[in-house]
Amino acid sequence: MRCIILFFSLIFVLNTTAQTDAEVLKSIYTTSLTNGYSYQWLDHLSNQIGGRLSGSLNAEIAVEYTKEELEKLGLDKVWLQPVMVPKWVRGAPEFAFIETVSGSTTNVNICALGGSMPTPIGGLKANVVEVKSMEELKTLGKENIEGKIVFFNRPMQPEIIQTFEAYGSCANQRYSGALEATKYGAVGVIVRSLSLRQDDFPHTGSMTYGNLPLSKRIPSAAISTNDANTLSTMLALNKDVKFYFSQTCKQLDDVKSYNVIGEITGSQFPNEYIIVGGHLDSWDLGDGAHDDGAGVVQSMEVLRLFKELGIKPKRSIRVVLFMNEENGLRGALKYAEVAKQKGEKHIFSLESDSGGFTPRGFSFDCNDANFNQVLGWKDLFKPYLIHYFEKGGSGADVGPLKTDSNVLSGLRPDSQRYFDYHHAANDTFDAVNKRELELGAASMASLVYLFDTYGLVK
Amino acid sequence: MRCIILFFSLIFVLNTTAQTDAEVLKSIYTTSLTNGYSYQWLDHLSNQIGGRLSGSLNAEIAVEYTKEELEKLGLDKVWLQPVMVPKWVRGAPEFAFIETVSGSTTNVNICALGGSMPTPIGGLKANVVEVKSMEELKTLGKENIEGKIVFFNRPMQPEIIQTFEAYGSCANQRYSGALEATKYGAVGVIVRSLSLRQDDFPHTGSMTYGNLPLSKRIPSAAISTNDANTLSTMLALNKDVKFYFSQTCKQLDDVKSYNVIGEITGSQFPNEYIIVGGHLDSWDLGDGAHDDGAGVVQSMEVLRLFKELGIKPKRSIRVVLFMNEENGLRGALKYAEVAKQKGEKHIFSLESDSGGFTPRGFSFDCNDANFNQVLGWKDLFKPYLIHYFEKGGSGADVGPLKTDSNVLSGLRPDSQRYFDYHHAANDTFDAVNKRELELGAASMASLVYLFDTYGLVK
Repeated sequence: MRCIILFFSLIFVLNTTAQTDAEVLKSIYTTSLTNGYSYQWLDHLSNQIGGRLSGSLNAEIAVEYTKEELEKLGLDKVWLQPVMVPKWVRGAPEFAFIETVSGSTTNVNICALGGSMPTPIGGLKANVVEVKSMEELKTLGKENIEGKIVFFNRPMQPEIIQTFEAYGSCANQRYSGALEATKYGAVGVIVRSLSLRQDDFPHTGSMTYGNLPLSKRIPSAAISTNDANTLSTMLALNKDVKFYFSQTCKQLDDVKSYNVIGEITGSQFPNEYIIVGGHLDSWDLGDGAHDDGAGVVQSMEVLRLFKELGIKPKRSIRVVLFMNEENGLRGALKYAEVAKQKGEKHIFSLESDSGGFTPRGFSFDCNDANFNQVLGWKDLFKPYLIHYFEKGGSGADVGPLKTDSNVLSGLRPDSQRYFDYHHAANDTFDAVNKRELELGAASMASLVYLFDTYGLVK
Repeated sequence: MRCIILFFSLIFVLNTTAQTDAEVLKSIYTTSLTNGYSYQWLDHLSNQIGGRLSGSLNAEIAVEYTKEELEKLGLDKVWLQPVMVPKWVRGAPEFAFIETVSGSTTNVNICALGGSMPTPIGGLKANVVEVKSMEELKTLGKENIEGKIVFFNRPMQPEIIQTFEAYGSCANQRYSGALEATKYGAVGVIVRSLSLRQDDFPHTGSMTYGNLPLSKRIPSAAISTNDANTLSTMLALNKDVKFYFSQTCKQLDDVKSYNVIGEITGSQFPNEYIIVGGHLDSWDLGDGAHDDGAGVVQSMEVLRLFKELGIKPKRSIRVVLFMNEENGLRGALKYAEVAKQKGEKHIFSLESDSGGFTPRGFSFDCNDANFNQVLGWKDLFKPYLIHYFEKGGSGADVGPLKTDSNVLSGLRPDSQRYFDYHHAANDTFDAVNKRELELGAASMASLVYLFDTYGLVK
């Protein structure tokens, strides 16, 4: 009898809890969709501020703007966390053309890769050698490469359904292409833009020279997918075509910048932290609406929804707007360093850095027990068409917070269009849909609510 | 022992089958994404032909174009199925303004609803009464409505996650608004556009006058959401503002048009039919890329993928490009009528008429046994991020084929952006993403493949 009573009590408790959670989620989604702030914040970030490259004036304006907006929300604390960041400037617009042996030229669309050296004043003109991989570079060797521009032209594979995977399998060309090509005496590097579309936009992104001395560093640029095809075709017809490009970018000394942080302090477990974040810096070609303005405003919206709905969290919930994800990750490293120094226990860290598209779910970097806990919440998300709960990566900015017992997670929006805009001049406010952005913010707030309510399983 | 052998044999058979199906699906997706025709067909339909209103020259050109393209695929049969369709023409661009009591005017964006009467020559100017529902209309009654323009202004609810549901709960204003308002002596009807965005695009769509005699029919137009808000605000300030609109649209006599049909005849069960279709007609304001150019080219692509991959179906598989879904459904009714006359057994009918966005899954109108069969295939779609398998509606064009024992289905793409474009001038080719379109086509081909391979459970 006692067992039966206990059993029914348990059923009752479970039912009550489940119903309450469902109701809270409904209020979160409804508020985000009918009275959300995320879209108007993104409008300001994109259209009034614009691209926010680390160390730029725009990045500093964005720091001030988001701090002021967070201060309006009545959080318990809002502060700036200082961090030194690299400052790279693009300089004058790049210029490039393909020159045939007869001397006729075809202008093409390029942009310097982030962190690249400039070309010599007056530009650089050389023969071109096209490769699809680092292995091919090695096989060709110094005799075929010295004095030439290496053209990395391995396209992203359209048949890979998860576009981030297609991106991952090509990104080494952009990141390490110059470093590798230098070994064989190349004088410059041109990289096919990492996009699944055929269009005229060059896509920038970070690159490395490793420990190469300044004198060995060669200029590196991205070329649009259309122009990559043109260059490849012209090379196939005559390998003696030349490529010319000019860029005046420059790496300056590090400058001081900030992570922007806001907190609602927990009522029961104030030293258990849940964070939600995106990165405030962006590349400079567009206005960084998808990468990562969307993640910034969605993360701010999570805390605003808590305040607006009067949800008083048990644990401390922070929004962290990381500086310098794109070309240094300095903000993320600083945040993790300070958290460690202070002994702050970060139990759950959620990042949105995959664009402001319709949310499909989340990926989780955690142990099996915690993943099973999350799977138990999956049905709560079904009315919102959130189906994807998988183990996987989280995000670059929350990555340094990883421990054996905590949970890192990344919002997983539909990714089919993401690389159409990624790091290019068309990553602008008009490419973000209001509802899709708001659904993402509500999904994040809902997951944060559940982790705050139940904490981590032991 | 025998049981054990049987058991293992069964496991083996199941495994072999599952692997083969998985491989076929992979080849279908890969081909659609790397070598698909859907996007180039849509480019032609949208940019070379354009809007395809039933009875228009463009609709006839589209019939010829798609027939020719299907003929190039080497199907077993391609033919045109004649059907009489209504012919409504928009006439000169509509013009409208709001006039204050002091006589100042504000121009607003409207479009005649499909099937509407024209205004009198020189336009129609009258006082306005704003309502949110048919009940409110009834409550206001003749004394408040006679001689006025009724302004239906119930917005789609953003908090409804499934946008088609939000649309469904507002569409009666557009479809029946004029018919209802006439009962109370209204002289015209203006309807808030059925869109979840705030913008300047009016969205057309079908409307009815029921059995009203011609002399009782009043002109009806849609107004953009921005202008609906302006009108509502101005009415709140002063209920004596007037609304003027002019439209010269006209309903002409029915004309002959066609469904376009292509077939691969089944090798084992030629009189079991599987059809896949969309509607070839569209509204006239945009080029009908999402509604339903996408469904047309995806359906064509299903048969092309079968041919290209050498899949020889057991059952007869047809692509049906229906004419006149938007303002009559005449093509669908004709197809079903002829199918019935000929005793063709349609076991599975799949429609794509929800836009060319990332596919999320399918909804199924069928009995439990057949639905359980479908659920057994769900895991095969997981690598393609197709999660949504639910009972529900299928589509207007396949609806007339419903029996107790067959399966109707609708492709369910992500719908968050659909009503941004639906029936408006911005429903254009550039709003369709190539990958998203191709993923939809591959999902449809995969489901058709499975139904062809396994047939219906008894």
